[in-house]
Amino acid sequence: MKKHDQDFMKRQNRLTVFEIIKNQPPISRASIAKQTGMSATTISRIVGELTEQGYILESEQVSAGLGRKSTLLGLIDASVLSIGIELDRHKISVGVVDLQGKAVCSEVHGHFPDERFETTMMRIGKIVGDLLRKGGIDPARVVGIGVGLPGIVNNETGIVVFSVQMGWKNVRLAELLKDLTGFEVAVDNELKVKALAEHLKGSAIGSNRTALIGFGNGVGSSLIIDGEIYRGDMNSAGEIGHTTIDPNGMLCECGKAGCLQTYVNISSLLLEASKIRQVHTIEELFEAKKAGERWAVHLVDRALMYMSITVNNIVCMYNPDSVILSGELVDKFPDIYEEVKELCSTTLVWEPLRESYRFLRSELNEQGVLIGSGLLAQTRFFTLE
Amino acid sequence: MKKHDQDFMKRQNRLTVFEIIKNQPPISRASIAKQTGMSATTISRIVGELTEQGYILESEQVSAGLGRKSTLLGLIDASVLSIGIELDRHKISVGVVDLQGKAVCSEVHGHFPDERFETTMMRIGKIVGDLLRKGGIDPARVVGIGVGLPGIVNNETGIVVFSVQMGWKNVRLAELLKDLTGFEVAVDNELKVKALAEHLKGSAIGSNRTALIGFGNGVGSSLIIDGEIYRGDMNSAGEIGHTTIDPNGMLCECGKAGCLQTYVNISSLLLEASKIRQVHTIEELFEAKKAGERWAVHLVDRALMYMSITVNNIVCMYNPDSVILSGELVDKFPDIYEEVKELCSTTLVWEPLRESYRFLRSELNEQGVLIGSGLLAQTRFFTLE
Repeated sequence: MKKHDQDFMKRQNRLTVFEIIKNQPPISRASIAKQTGMSATTISRIVGELTEQGYILESEQVSAGLGRKSTLLGLIDASVLSIGIELDRHKISVGVVDLQGKAVCSEVHGHFPDERFETTMMRIGKIVGDLLRKGGIDPARVVGIGVGLPGIVNNETGIVVFSVQMGWKNVRLAELLKDLTGFEVAVDNELKVKALAEHLKGSAIGSNRTALIGFGNGVGSSLIIDGEIYRGDMNSAGEIGHTTIDPNGMLCECGKAGCLQTYVNISSLLLEASKIRQVHTIEELFEAKKAGERWAVHLVDRALMYMSITVNNIVCMYNPDSVILSGELVDKFPDIYEEVKELCSTTLVWEPLRESYRFLRSELNEQGVLIGSGLLAQTRFFTLE
Repeated sequence: MKKHDQDFMKRQNRLTVFEIIKNQPPISRASIAKQTGMSATTISRIVGELTEQGYILESEQVSAGLGRKSTLLGLIDASVLSIGIELDRHKISVGVVDLQGKAVCSEVHGHFPDERFETTMMRIGKIVGDLLRKGGIDPARVVGIGVGLPGIVNNETGIVVFSVQMGWKNVRLAELLKDLTGFEVAVDNELKVKALAEHLKGSAIGSNRTALIGFGNGVGSSLIIDGEIYRGDMNSAGEIGHTTIDPNGMLCECGKAGCLQTYVNISSLLLEASKIRQVHTIEELFEAKKAGERWAVHLVDRALMYMSITVNNIVCMYNPDSVILSGELVDKFPDIYEEVKELCSTTLVWEPLRESYRFLRSELNEQGVLIGSGLLAQTRFFTLE
């Protein structure tokens, strides 16, 4: 018992020193000692270990005031790498993510909604191997794989409980992908890792309560409280797309009527458009709107209104300090950001909270899930190590 | 710096011992030592202090197994008292709450919506003094006042930022009531303290993510995560009553159209009813429904549907393990509980989460806010002491 406690403390101290060097480079041993209250001996031991393992880069710098030389520490960004994967109905994005959340290299592959789960996994295993080889990445530096996808995911077991968009129910994703690649695998809901990425490396650095909304093939949200993903009881918090807006409304693919997402998501918009004429892509719909075709103007304007209502409902429920708009619709049609912002600030957000939050654009855009998944795998590695 | 740290540790240890005795009575010194890892000397010192201050009751008990006598510790419930106050549009409830969250005595007084804020405060000051005198309560045992009310409350400064129901904007409630009574005053949103009370002493003991919904003169909700109130950035999280359901819907008293609460709250129901005939109380409306009057059946059934939608939207957004129904409507018409439960479990909650939560009745009912406010004042006292 005692022994275990000491090991635990050692690991914790090591992690603390590592995190400080990662977040405040370049930094001196003395500053680390001051911040942590650890002794010079402890810090020397830990820094020694980390240097030996190839994580740390020392540099000599002359401090401005006294002209004395001091040795400063930083991390070698490529000393810890992870693989981030985004799965979507139509595509698979795979990338190598470094300690700073930069995608060192990445690739996008197609995905067919009716492909068997096992086939998809085998393809991913091959894509990962090829990517490491082509990029000249040392597999020994890769600490794990992170996967982000839409749906209900048990982030502890790595089982995808339910994903309409992937067509999966209770598939053991982490287990199978680990067997195929040999890497540890962390799996999570796409919007949760995306919000984590924006919080750590994107537009919401420094925020204590970040809400992220995704508008795309579905509508969802996520919440970061004091740097931690708010998961709810089954890692399903944030499913705003299935909040009911109109009990007499359109049927949703979930079988319930009047879900919020039926007014906003891409497949619903295309399905409604097809009552007038065959529109195959969301780009065609927005072009028809631009050309002033009345039905298209109606559909898009209504979607913008419900996007603003989504913001209002998020603000009322979570009372965040920041709201980030993201997702395929916002990535493809950046004007949406300004239009929704305008609707929110003039009428559609509840007056007492209208000025209570920062309205933000995603900074990582379509790479957010990939980077967030990679960072998740790194976090998991350092916590478990 | 060092000195302050030691004081802090001493206070923390004292609080830890106190909390353990409070939550697990009767308990031996040895059990406390085992749970906390503190030395026998430290525990003896703390228990000695607490006994001297009149908090602790010692009892000798023979343990079942060995027949040895041991001294067990418990708290004297009345050794720490607080005053809990619930403010509502039409009434003021004041009670004395003990350590176990029991209302030792309480009184309900009327409130007129157009009464001046200062007048209300002076009346409350007098009610508190009278109640202590009549109840024979030693003011030295009262550690503070807690106040719960509807609206946006800054729980740190004790300022009521905005309360439509009380007709207040930016009033310094804590400051004025402290001046008038001499007691420390904690102020919070009514549903937040109510959820706290249900979590600590009511139907949600042991839950890690409790959502509470209040249906009454407004519609609101609150969330307890791992024993802590989730406040959001401005203590305004949970304002589900102002989530927009229908942008073309009825005007809400907030000035926005189609807020969820316009379908459910008492004043909206009475206003709609008045299109048919003058109905002065919610009881009259429910009687008309019972008598089968079509317009009343329509209004009440629609309200029940939107209550169920409220549950769905809470479950999708917060993914709680427990949902508690509360508020004047549920207190007055207990059938609502079963009817909403039925609607939720058959159709209106999103299928993947339909079985994910316990559907609970409030246990503390109309005393929830009063008790929660009292417990809030106690928590504040022990944290600051």
